[in-house]
Amino acid sequence: MAKSPIKSPLADSDKAVTGGVLQSTLVDLIDLSLIAKQAHWNVVGPNFRSVHLQLDELVAAARKYVDEVAERASAIGISPTGKTTTVVENSSLPAYPEGWQSAEATIAAIVEILAEEIRLLRERIDETDKTDLVTQDLLLELTQELEKAHWMWQAQQA
Amino acid sequence: MAKSPIKSPLADSDKAVTGGVLQSTLVDLIDLSLIAKQAHWNVVGPNFRSVHLQLDELVAAARKYVDEVAERASAIGISPTGKTTTVVENSSLPAYPEGWQSAEATIAAIVEILAEEIRLLRERIDETDKTDLVTQDLLLELTQELEKAHWMWQAQQA
Amino acid sequence: MAKSPIKSPLADSDKAVTGGVLQSTLVDLIDLSLIAKQAHWNVVGPNFRSVHLQLDELVAAARKYVDEVAERASAIGISPTGKTTTVVENSSLPAYPEGWQSAEATIAAIVEILAEEIRLLRERIDETDKTDLVTQDLLLELTQELEKAHWMWQAQQA
Amino acid sequence: MAKSPIKSPLADSDKAVTGGVLQSTLVDLIDLSLIAKQAHWNVVGPNFRSVHLQLDELVAAARKYVDEVAERASAIGISPTGKTTTVVENSSLPAYPEGWQSAEATIAAIVEILAEEIRLLRERIDETDKTDLVTQDLLLELTQELEKAHWMWQAQQA
Amino acid sequence: MAKSPIKSPLADSDKAVTGGVLQSTLVDLIDLSLIAKQAHWNVVGPNFRSVHLQLDELVAAARKYVDEVAERASAIGISPTGKTTTVVENSSLPAYPEGWQSAEATIAAIVEILAEEIRLLRERIDETDKTDLVTQDLLLELTQELEKAHWMWQAQQA
Amino acid sequence: MAKSPIKSPLADSDKAVTGGVLQSTLVDLIDLSLIAKQAHWNVVGPNFRSVHLQLDELVAAARKYVDEVAERASAIGISPTGKTTTVVENSSLPAYPEGWQSAEATIAAIVEILAEEIRLLRERIDETDKTDLVTQDLLLELTQELEKAHWMWQAQQA
Amino acid sequence: MAKSPIKSPLADSDKAVTGGVLQSTLVDLIDLSLIAKQAHWNVVGPNFRSVHLQLDELVAAARKYVDEVAERASAIGISPTGKTTTVVENSSLPAYPEGWQSAEATIAAIVEILAEEIRLLRERIDETDKTDLVTQDLLLELTQELEKAHWMWQAQQA
Amino acid sequence: MAKSPIKSPLADSDKAVTGGVLQSTLVDLIDLSLIAKQAHWNVVGPNFRSVHLQLDELVAAARKYVDEVAERASAIGISPTGKTTTVVENSSLPAYPEGWQSAEATIAAIVEILAEEIRLLRERIDETDKTDLVTQDLLLELTQELEKAHWMWQAQQA
Amino acid sequence: MAKSPIKSPLADSDKAVTGGVLQSTLVDLIDLSLIAKQAHWNVVGPNFRSVHLQLDELVAAARKYVDEVAERASAIGISPTGKTTTVVENSSLPAYPEGWQSAEATIAAIVEILAEEIRLLRERIDETDKTDLVTQDLLLELTQELEKAHWMWQAQQA
Amino acid sequence: MAKSPIKSPLADSDKAVTGGVLQSTLVDLIDLSLIAKQAHWNVVGPNFRSVHLQLDELVAAARKYVDEVAERASAIGISPTGKTTTVVENSSLPAYPEGWQSAEATIAAIVEILAEEIRLLRERIDETDKTDLVTQDLLLELTQELEKAHWMWQAQQA
Amino acid sequence: MAKSPIKSPLADSDKAVTGGVLQSTLVDLIDLSLIAKQAHWNVVGPNFRSVHLQLDELVAAARKYVDEVAERASAIGISPTGKTTTVVENSSLPAYPEGWQSAEATIAAIVEILAEEIRLLRERIDETDKTDLVTQDLLLELTQELEKAHWMWQAQQA
Amino acid sequence: MAKSPIKSPLADSDKAVTGGVLQSTLVDLIDLSLIAKQAHWNVVGPNFRSVHLQLDELVAAARKYVDEVAERASAIGISPTGKTTTVVENSSLPAYPEGWQSAEATIAAIVEILAEEIRLLRERIDETDKTDLVTQDLLLELTQELEKAHWMWQAQQA
Repeated sequence: MAKSPIKSPLADSDKAVTGGVLQSTLVDLIDLSLIAKQAHWNVVGPNFRSVHLQLDELVAAARKYVDEVAERASAIGISPTGKTTTVVENSSLPAYPEGWQSAEATIAAIVEILAEEIRLLRERIDETDKTDLVTQDLLLELTQELEKAHWMWQAQQA
Repeated sequence: MAKSPIKSPLADSDKAVTGGVLQSTLVDLIDLSLIAKQAHWNVVGPNFRSVHLQLDELVAAARKYVDEVAERASAIGISPTGKTTTVVENSSLPAYPEGWQSAEATIAAIVEILAEEIRLLRERIDETDKTDLVTQDLLLELTQELEKAHWMWQAQQA
Repeated sequence: MAKSPIKSPLADSDKAVTGGVLQSTLVDLIDLSLIAKQAHWNVVGPNFRSVHLQLDELVAAARKYVDEVAERASAIGISPTGKTTTVVENSSLPAYPEGWQSAEATIAAIVEILAEEIRLLRERIDETDKTDLVTQDLLLELTQELEKAHWMWQAQQA
Repeated sequence: MAKSPIKSPLADSDKAVTGGVLQSTLVDLIDLSLIAKQAHWNVVGPNFRSVHLQLDELVAAARKYVDEVAERASAIGISPTGKTTTVVENSSLPAYPEGWQSAEATIAAIVEILAEEIRLLRERIDETDKTDLVTQDLLLELTQELEKAHWMWQAQQA
Repeated sequence: MAKSPIKSPLADSDKAVTGGVLQSTLVDLIDLSLIAKQAHWNVVGPNFRSVHLQLDELVAAARKYVDEVAERASAIGISPTGKTTTVVENSSLPAYPEGWQSAEATIAAIVEILAEEIRLLRERIDETDKTDLVTQDLLLELTQELEKAHWMWQAQQA
Repeated sequence: MAKSPIKSPLADSDKAVTGGVLQSTLVDLIDLSLIAKQAHWNVVGPNFRSVHLQLDELVAAARKYVDEVAERASAIGISPTGKTTTVVENSSLPAYPEGWQSAEATIAAIVEILAEEIRLLRERIDETDKTDLVTQDLLLELTQELEKAHWMWQAQQA
Repeated sequence: MAKSPIKSPLADSDKAVTGGVLQSTLVDLIDLSLIAKQAHWNVVGPNFRSVHLQLDELVAAARKYVDEVAERASAIGISPTGKTTTVVENSSLPAYPEGWQSAEATIAAIVEILAEEIRLLRERIDETDKTDLVTQDLLLELTQELEKAHWMWQAQQA
Repeated sequence: MAKSPIKSPLADSDKAVTGGVLQSTLVDLIDLSLIAKQAHWNVVGPNFRSVHLQLDELVAAARKYVDEVAERASAIGISPTGKTTTVVENSSLPAYPEGWQSAEATIAAIVEILAEEIRLLRERIDETDKTDLVTQDLLLELTQELEKAHWMWQAQQA
Repeated sequence: MAKSPIKSPLADSDKAVTGGVLQSTLVDLIDLSLIAKQAHWNVVGPNFRSVHLQLDELVAAARKYVDEVAERASAIGISPTGKTTTVVENSSLPAYPEGWQSAEATIAAIVEILAEEIRLLRERIDETDKTDLVTQDLLLELTQELEKAHWMWQAQQA
Repeated sequence: MAKSPIKSPLADSDKAVTGGVLQSTLVDLIDLSLIAKQAHWNVVGPNFRSVHLQLDELVAAARKYVDEVAERASAIGISPTGKTTTVVENSSLPAYPEGWQSAEATIAAIVEILAEEIRLLRERIDETDKTDLVTQDLLLELTQELEKAHWMWQAQQA
Repeated sequence: MAKSPIKSPLADSDKAVTGGVLQSTLVDLIDLSLIAKQAHWNVVGPNFRSVHLQLDELVAAARKYVDEVAERASAIGISPTGKTTTVVENSSLPAYPEGWQSAEATIAAIVEILAEEIRLLRERIDETDKTDLVTQDLLLELTQELEKAHWMWQAQQA
Repeated sequence: MAKSPIKSPLADSDKAVTGGVLQSTLVDLIDLSLIAKQAHWNVVGPNFRSVHLQLDELVAAARKYVDEVAERASAIGISPTGKTTTVVENSSLPAYPEGWQSAEATIAAIVEILAEEIRLLRERIDETDKTDLVTQDLLLELTQELEKAHWMWQAQQA
């Protein structure tokens, strides 16, 4: 099916830029949701239960935006790709270690990952400023959510 | 953290076999949940809405067992691994195509993928018969769920 | 439509035995649901209200397993049959009397019917031990439910 | 228990006519609920899921009026009979075929069955006009429900 | 405030007849709701709890129609009167005894009271046939409810 | 699509009369729902909030019957028309003024509009008495609802 | 049934005093609930809707304590009496006028009635100080509720 | 009432432009909600049920923004007008055909109508960029919703 | 941990008396909750279902106050003890028989146990009058609950 | 508005004392709710999340009693004052520090603040013993709530 | 704790401006929530109930944004301050009078306070245009909410 | 009542073994529920709140299986015994210490108790393999639940 069956409301060049931004964000968020689950199962130590629960809230937030971002891509005529191979090749997130992790190591890794994703999202907000304000609005909402989460994870390192 | 901090209720050899089964199943189910989402976003054609909704039920079922299977691994002292790289290297599921797909092609691919996973699960049920009945019970329940889904997807090909 | 459009995960002989067990159970459960409704409308006497309500709980339980048993049959490639003529010709349950019934007579009839169905279910659990563990698991759950109901109905005869 | 323990608010001849109408309707509705379940499990083909769900809505509607009609019979002093043998001997509905059915065949059969039941209900509404307005009111409500369902099933044949 | 501030949709004579029927029914239903509460608090004996609960269902039904009947009177321009003195002077219901009552005596009294009210309602349904079909429709619904309750109370005397 | 794809349960002349009644009622109710929204947004004055909320209850009631009336038309084989041009050409309701309105003016206009619609509905109830009792039953229920609303709006003018 | 079947936890004289207080309060609260309903149906004027709704909150509060007070009487071995004749003969509340009432007149009457009941309740709180602290606690809670309502009704007269 | 009783937070010229945009959008959305209902009642053909349900989701979305857009107009001191005559004279949407429609024709018409409304909304977003950012934010949210719906309707044409 | 880590708001002697009362009540309530469960499982006979359900309401009430009483003890600096050995050595409740019990025997035993506990609670209310009014208030509420339950159990013996 | 529009159920001197107690408590509880929010936003450190959540429970409890205490004041004819200037001038609570705080410091401050408020409440309970038992009852309930919270905050310091 | 433990995603000067805007808004919203509560308790007069309820909706809206604004400050590394002394010294809102207030005076004061806050918010929206779009988006949403409330309060003055 | 009023579905020797297993499990689970409550009230220290909440989840899990296990015993004709004396004499669980306990000591004790109960349950699963598969299925489910809890408690010791 070579030609897109979905007509875009955007001009071709705007669609290309916006679609690229959405596809990059989709890949990162899927990776984030799997990393957070991985951490959820492997965290150990004195603060175990509190961190275990907070990670599931992060999974829920990531999954919610995975869906909204992918459906926004479809809505502008871009076929979203969220298969595991695509994620492995394109995710911008730092790697997460294997095996059991202490609560401290878990927190540090999550804080670093969120910081990187927030930095990228702010760049993408700029990129969409000229190409599609509707998509930008969605990214602003997502960024507000992740920055709030970032504060809550950092607060535990103080 | 070389040594597992979780004491297993199983003898060492039983734990190794059971852990292997759980880890394989975990990887397949994560792959299944991402494939079903991919299909959910990319399906097009007259039956679009019905297939779109049915795929989200499959995502929900897969995610539910992803969690139960991983936590069962933790409970017997095995650190579960569900990171994207692990999934790409170890998933037993057939590949799913990129881009927009017709409803028929979507249904055919899902039916094939479910058939393969059910075949593997029935082998794993046999493997756990001697090593851990608690894990076997979890796999029986998962198999009943996937076989029911399998029927419902096949029914549309008749 | 001579050939089944649903591919079975079971070998042919296992499928035949398992399908027979499911079809027999389906017929009995439909009969049970109609008998319990009949009793619900025709019971009279001092304990009327308590028995009237308890019968509706039995209807709900029977209807729940009617659906699960029929869909399990579909899932292994057997077309389930639950039409009234099939039920009349194949139900294993003792007959229930016509017209208004005292609470005592109602209780006695229900206790006898449940006892017979439980006896049959335990035979069917044995039959499926070699053919399909997934179906056996479903029958075990159903038997636990009916045996609990059986106790509660007997308790009123003491 | 030869004599009815429930005193009727109706005169004897009105009670006989009204009771006959209610008993006929009860038998048809039980048959309808079982036919719709049978169809629910055996439908196959491209429109499978949509028809599968719509049939369960028909089951729910039929079951709701099964109860209201039977309890109305009890309320006017008539013992309702809804046992399978009674249904087989007295149902006015056309027979439904065995085995897997295509979506088209399923729709055609349901449309025909509903048309016949609606025709009968309109005769019964006339019969109760002189004998019991309360029962007539219940039949009007039931007819409105089935005629709406009838339209929705026909709409798929256009 | 001598003149009614609410304009009636009915002609004057139809309004007078319909208003009289609604006012009589209102008074009876208030009395019924207080009698049922009285019985609810004073019943004693082996079947205490079952009768105690069933009486509260009767209170709820009576209260629901108290409101609908009074608001229907307002809607046709008749000021409804439901004060205790009005109820004492105009209620058509048989008296209910004071003090603790056995379950049997309670049931017998409620059966008798319901029979009398049903008889009166059927007369009122005839009276409104020529004056206001909308009000008649409301009385039909109320009668169906009370006749069902009547059966359930009688059923305990069998 | 010249011929109706939906077979009517009514004879041709009964269908024509009943269909006309339903189509007229549909048009009036859509108009009523838009007028009530218009009033909801434009009311000002000391009683603003109370009237603002009460208007939304009227919108909800009108919308509920818009759907039931249109689907009843479909059920008897008449294609319902609820497009704005049809509403403008056929609505029987008095016009509602533009711009901000005081609470008093709002109440007076709504009372007048409801009075007119109730008068028309009572004529339509008579028309359907010989052609379709099922439709008549629906109009009785709708009239009861609007007459109750009519009282509540008048009560504020006293 | 001359002798009370319920053994009292109180000494005879304490039981007599406490029982008298509860019976008086029961009668007043039933009267209050009927007066508030009467007002709810008959209020007219610009503030109609707000007063109409507030009266139903008063009905709900009165009914809740009707039940708690009567069941407290039963709990200390006193048969509660709440029949209409008892209420007419024993209620301490001022009479409420017949027919349609303006919002102002309605508010004034309710304020006066609440003031009188609160005065009586404070006397009854004193009476139970020596006889039953559990009953006193219930009256304190009821008084807090009615005094709050009293403020809210007075606030509209300012 | 010549002068607006609501003081605007905007300067006069900004208020005029923003108010015009909101009034145009209000009229289109009311038209859209009626068209979608019209289609909901008149669609026929094999995919009937799926399209019938999807149209009701479009009605719900349209109604939600009807209210938000009208209340935003009120909030900036503009009296919103949503009466049927205003809608007929000012709606920008293409006409929708009368009578029963096949599922394909229904889908094609809805896709075309949504495309036109989205085009207009993007122009209006530009117009409000200089006059009121709060209103622009509301239009962005509405556009995201309609573009997502547009994709889902197009997906069925592939 | 010899010294209490929780600072008491009470003087030492008041704390000792109040703590003793709370500890005694805690032990009795745990015993009551286990006795009621024991009875719930072992009751048989015609009234089985009604008594079975009523016992679970008693369990729920007992468990609710177990928690409130223990946490009140903690709040005043007393470590509560609710271990089985403590309960066996200190419970004031009469013993409950082993094995299946008829409904009558069950009721009689529960009535006796509640009477004894109520007697003790009234003594404890007096004891706390000088030491802690907050605790006394909690006991008053508990006593009201148990006395109401006591009436309902006695009512079945009449 | 010099004279109170709300008539007090209390004698003048009792009203003065009770009103003073309620006004003091109102001011303290508003302060407590703002302090707990301040702490909720500024806490940092290893136990961050647990303390962050527990503080919001304290906010909820404080806000609930803010409302009940203020409405009790209104109910006895005292105009409650909860404006920020009043709170600053009259609050009895110790000051809370500015800026980020460690979890330990947060806990210590909250424990000290609660201890002081509990001490004051116990004095106020004594003051109202002679002036208004209804108000005293409200204070007892509030004290029980705060003492339970106090224990839970202290428990973390052990 | 001199240095902020939360790393800001903003450059230092952007952080300073944005932080100032958020702190000012936080202080105003806390003041608004307390003023609205004060008004809620002290309003009297014929429209009492309607205004009393509308004020609680304003409290709820204010409290919701208090939390979101404070947590946004934390998220960009600014410690929010919401203590009463800070509010008294920094709130931009006009003062609210002490004691009982008529409904008219209450409405006038709230309208004036909202107008002032809206004016300030529109300035702050401009200030954040260059420093943080995420914060600006939050302020746009808050302004839409307050402008809608402003209209509803003004509508009562017309 | 020497003879069991409940007929067993099992042969005598199977019933004896299965009944023994259920009775042992019942006793252990009651003990576990009381120990977890004891720990819930007496835990102190830095992690107080987290452990306090997690213990209540353990209480809920234990209570759920107390009921299912006891009702399973009744269902096979064995009278279950859960009285405190029986628990003290037969519980297999290690003793739990008196008085306040640190979070670490609490965790260690719970981990040890769960390990012992899991070891016993696995033996009982073997015992029931030959006597009653239905009971075994219930034990498998219980074991899965406790092993998951065991992991979560251990994770905090890592």
